Amino acid sequence: MSTHTIVFEPIGRKGECSEEESLLDCARNLGIGISSICGGRGTCGTCRVQLTEGTLSKPTDPEIAKLSKKELNDGWRLACQASPKSDCQIIIPPEGLSSSERIYLDGMETPVALEPPVKSYNVKMTAPTLTDQEADAERVLSALKAQHNVTCNRVENAVLRSISPNLRKLKWECQVAVRGDEVVAIMSPDNPLLGMAVDLGTTTVAGYLVDMTTGKTLASKGVMNPQIGYGEDVISRIDFAVRKSTDAKKLQKLVVNRLNDLAKELCSEVKADTKSVVEVVIVGNTAMHHLLLNLPVRQLVLTPFTAAVSMAVDVKAYELGMKIATGAYIHFPPVVTGFVGADHVAMLQAIDNRDDGKVIVALDIGTNTEISLIKGDKITSTSCASGPAFEGGHIKQGMRAAKGAIERVRIEDKRVIYQTIGEAPPIGICGSGVLDALAEMYLAGVIDESGRFAREYPGIRREDGKTEFVLAERIDADGEKTAIVMNQKDVRELQLAKAAIRSGIQLLLERNNFTDEDIDMVIVAGAFGTYIDLASSMSVGLLPSLPVERFKQVGNAAGIGAKMNLISLSSRKEARDIVSRATYIELAGTMEFKRAFVETSFLGRYRLNEGKREAID
Amino acid sequence: MSTHTIVFEPIGRKGECSEEESLLDCARNLGIGISSICGGRGTCGTCRVQLTEGTLSKPTDPEIAKLSKKELNDGWRLACQASPKSDCQIIIPPEGLSSSERIYLDGMETPVALEPPVKSYNVKMTAPTLTDQEADAERVLSALKAQHNVTCNRVENAVLRSISPNLRKLKWECQVAVRGDEVVAIMSPDNPLLGMAVDLGTTTVAGYLVDMTTGKTLASKGVMNPQIGYGEDVISRIDFAVRKSTDAKKLQKLVVNRLNDLAKELCSEVKADTKSVVEVVIVGNTAMHHLLLNLPVRQLVLTPFTAAVSMAVDVKAYELGMKIATGAYIHFPPVVTGFVGADHVAMLQAIDNRDDGKVIVALDIGTNTEISLIKGDKITSTSCASGPAFEGGHIKQGMRAAKGAIERVRIEDKRVIYQTIGEAPPIGICGSGVLDALAEMYLAGVIDESGRFAREYPGIRREDGKTEFVLAERIDADGEKTAIVMNQKDVRELQLAKAAIRSGIQLLLERNNFTDEDIDMVIVAGAFGTYIDLASSMSVGLLPSLPVERFKQVGNAAGIGAKMNLISLSSRKEARDIVSRATYIELAGTMEFKRAFVETSFLGRYRLNEGKREAID
Repeated sequence: MSTHTIVFEPIGRKGECSEEESLLDCARNLGIGISSICGGRGTCGTCRVQLTEGTLSKPTDPEIAKLSKKELNDGWRLACQASPKSDCQIIIPPEGLSSSERIYLDGMETPVALEPPVKSYNVKMTAPTLTDQEADAERVLSALKAQHNVTCNRVENAVLRSISPNLRKLKWECQVAVRGDEVVAIMSPDNPLLGMAVDLGTTTVAGYLVDMTTGKTLASKGVMNPQIGYGEDVISRIDFAVRKSTDAKKLQKLVVNRLNDLAKELCSEVKADTKSVVEVVIVGNTAMHHLLLNLPVRQLVLTPFTAAVSMAVDVKAYELGMKIATGAYIHFPPVVTGFVGADHVAMLQAIDNRDDGKVIVALDIGTNTEISLIKGDKITSTSCASGPAFEGGHIKQGMRAAKGAIERVRIEDKRVIYQTIGEAPPIGICGSGVLDALAEMYLAGVIDESGRFAREYPGIRREDGKTEFVLAERIDADGEKTAIVMNQKDVRELQLAKAAIRSGIQLLLERNNFTDEDIDMVIVAGAFGTYIDLASSMSVGLLPSLPVERFKQVGNAAGIGAKMNLISLSSRKEARDIVSRATYIELAGTMEFKRAFVETSFLGRYRLNEGKREAID
Repeated sequence: MSTHTIVFEPIGRKGECSEEESLLDCARNLGIGISSICGGRGTCGTCRVQLTEGTLSKPTDPEIAKLSKKELNDGWRLACQASPKSDCQIIIPPEGLSSSERIYLDGMETPVALEPPVKSYNVKMTAPTLTDQEADAERVLSALKAQHNVTCNRVENAVLRSISPNLRKLKWECQVAVRGDEVVAIMSPDNPLLGMAVDLGTTTVAGYLVDMTTGKTLASKGVMNPQIGYGEDVISRIDFAVRKSTDAKKLQKLVVNRLNDLAKELCSEVKADTKSVVEVVIVGNTAMHHLLLNLPVRQLVLTPFTAAVSMAVDVKAYELGMKIATGAYIHFPPVVTGFVGADHVAMLQAIDNRDDGKVIVALDIGTNTEISLIKGDKITSTSCASGPAFEGGHIKQGMRAAKGAIERVRIEDKRVIYQTIGEAPPIGICGSGVLDALAEMYLAGVIDESGRFAREYPGIRREDGKTEFVLAERIDADGEKTAIVMNQKDVRELQLAKAAIRSGIQLLLERNNFTDEDIDMVIVAGAFGTYIDLASSMSVGLLPSLPVERFKQVGNAAGIGAKMNLISLSSRKEARDIVSRATYIELAGTMEFKRAFVETSFLGRYRLNEGKREAID
């Protein structure tokens, strides 16, 4: 009986499935809740999933009855009917997941004064007559000048394309949205004036709806990046995008559709129309940035990993396919290089990055981890391929931070205590959970400083010839027990990930002639950074051993930075300033990085002294 | 036996056709040469024509064999097989016409200094490395600054979309086309730098290919406006465009395709690629302007006939569907009002419009005639619906200026002498011919000053109960004689047309407190204006009676003005200046216009004194 590995997205949980088993059974065995009403008879159609990689059994009659030809062609199947014929990647649509992923949205309100790029003015005009034939566009500009002393020289072309019927419908009384010296929208006088800030991550997308007249956040929402079906990390996305030009377009369109939906959902929360959104700011890593802007990406993954453009780019929303105010723009803040994107710049903006003379290390841990060392005006940045382990990837029972994920682990008196998201039965382990597990296993002696398993320890067992440590057990409805474990390979993955990050921090310090002790502040941003236990981070040597008060976990700082760029022209200038102050250091492949990497792959608290590890109690 | 009226476009010749006759026979009877090789058996397919209005007989088997289903749906037929079932409009494609229309292209070279909106610079760069990760766009901008001291802040988005592979293909050595502070194209260093100026008329399109580094015209070409199938004048085009939004798009696409072909043809004359065209300037009347820019047009034909926008509009060529240099722009100079377009402004630019204190009347005669009175800084403009008579429209045997058209007429000793274009047998009569005929018929006494036919005169005859005057006779291959005539209705059409124009001139003078004698210069532009006989124009009272040296026929001045705007930023400023100096006077519907119209419909040389006609010998 042949079995295959199935990866269920967007939650990122994978497991084995035999050819005799349905995808629904497989998901249930893994503890993933897929909606199913009819009990697997193929009659309700609620267990729809989409195949994005691999081969499944032929569609059954119930599937042919429930799904259109186009849907079947697009890979849609009923999970209760389909069985794998090879390793597969399966997407569960949001409505089919019984619980959704936790996406980190909160953070401080934006710490900048309101100085919006788009302002609006209500004007009243008289209708044209045979003796007053001023053109429609000029009539609007004249009214702006006469009634508000605002000088505009241009009307965006798409606004021109509807100006005449629009003014007549509004009976020559309207709200004019102005950006610089250009009219970007003509709306009803009572329309709200909205903006949207977006943190476009490789995995998740966080959107914020902002009142452009007050700077207040009106609504926020996190959703999955729908490109996830085409690769979990930026490298595999780009690999897909460069295969053929339509594939890059496909990835672009997926994100645009999701952004349009996000705008709609956020606007509906405040009962507004998306036509009221007059400006959007999007920050993301350079790959997400390039893919969304249809920029070339092939060179991003070839040495020396050059970005097509670094400076801020303004693009008309309709050019990218976004359906908001007629002539609205999307502003993309600048990126530093191919591996340090606008999200990192936005994060640096959101934190206090010029705290006179203090030495600040700011990092956003992800599949790719960007790190900056700031002292005064000088910013030194690097980026390291830390892999997906801290997001639950490449970990046997790893998953993203969704319901049922183990997020906290303690080992007391050789007994494991754990906590799951939503206090649900454990179905896997997410980033903060694996970090805790690694730290506690090390501290309790389950593994030694090299990561090797102890010969004996309560919970250590051998399964299929592999040593593993049982963290938790779930008892399923049928009374069967399933263990959530960490094995030797998982430990190795985590060691590689944390060594990459710690080496990055280390070399940035060395290049600036600092040691760990010189660091005044370590700022950890992002979802993982927000949920991790600092003690665990230090225990495994992921972060330097410092007093806890020198750490700051700032939440989704990139999202806050995006909001700052949305409502403040000074912030846009500052973003430019940050990029011009930043020096990028490429570490991958250097001898010093390789040396540091070996030293920092060990567990435990330590400092590096001239490249050598010195243990700290 | 039922007969129907068939209008053959683009030459504008119409005639009767019975239901038993083929379109090919009908065209031949009218003297129009449609290519046909197989002798009307439907086997060669060269006599393809397109039906744009009316009903034809059902497609025959040879037609079904020669034409695809789509072609038949689009109205394509074989002229030798199809017979009319109603009045029809038929388009003969360029390749099917044995002789082409004469389109006026010449004119003075542009009288302005070179000050082009787009310049180009050759730069050499070093390839990025791991220690020099400057982004591709920034690398180009840095090279521009370092090697040419040119500061650019932006790279057009479409240029960004191909910048990375492009620079690598060009091995970091390229020509950078810069417009203002923006890079609009990155090309091979040896590419020529070209621009295209277009005079987009309702009937014809004149294109000029210009070397942007010298300002020299390299090639020019005139083609038909393909919208002609959807109405001969702007009103009927707009009527078509507002029926449904896809119809407006259809008209737009027709012109864009024609412009793309025109660019290709012009470039091939100098063995260049259309990707070398880095800027386009298009002038046209306000309707052509709005339709091409996808601007709203409904309000253009409803009182008070307001333009959507008057100021100059820059639009990216690719946004309109034009395939030239990657990020190139199309510049549309400003219009004055709904009825005084950018072509008139360009014409005013091409003539010396500030000849200190002189009183200048400048006019471009067409279906719509725009007239400006200039004195010093002040420009008073108007527009009058003069109808298509002077372009051969609404005249029984009228046609455009194509081979076989009578273009000159003299009556000496009661005998008509005439000249045809290309010295071909006469098949109709074009604008300059009908004006001559009207003048000579009046001077010879064939008609009196009210336009009424004399009772008897050699050549006057009655056909089908209508009085007509025979101008010429053609003997066809089969020995049959066909007469080219002017009838009473033709004379009336011409009187209406010339009264509209003369009234316009008259009222502009009156509003400025001038009389005919105060005019220092009458400038007549456009194809018709270039070919007309000035004496005939004065004899019928179309133009004021003045010494011949006070007239200037300037050819396609609008085309020259377009070229000026293409190569000179100062000219673009001047266009803006002209529009700001121009006051539009709406005459249609005013009592004074009605009064002047009655007086000026009489033939003969005269002046108006307090609204009353005073004859001049």
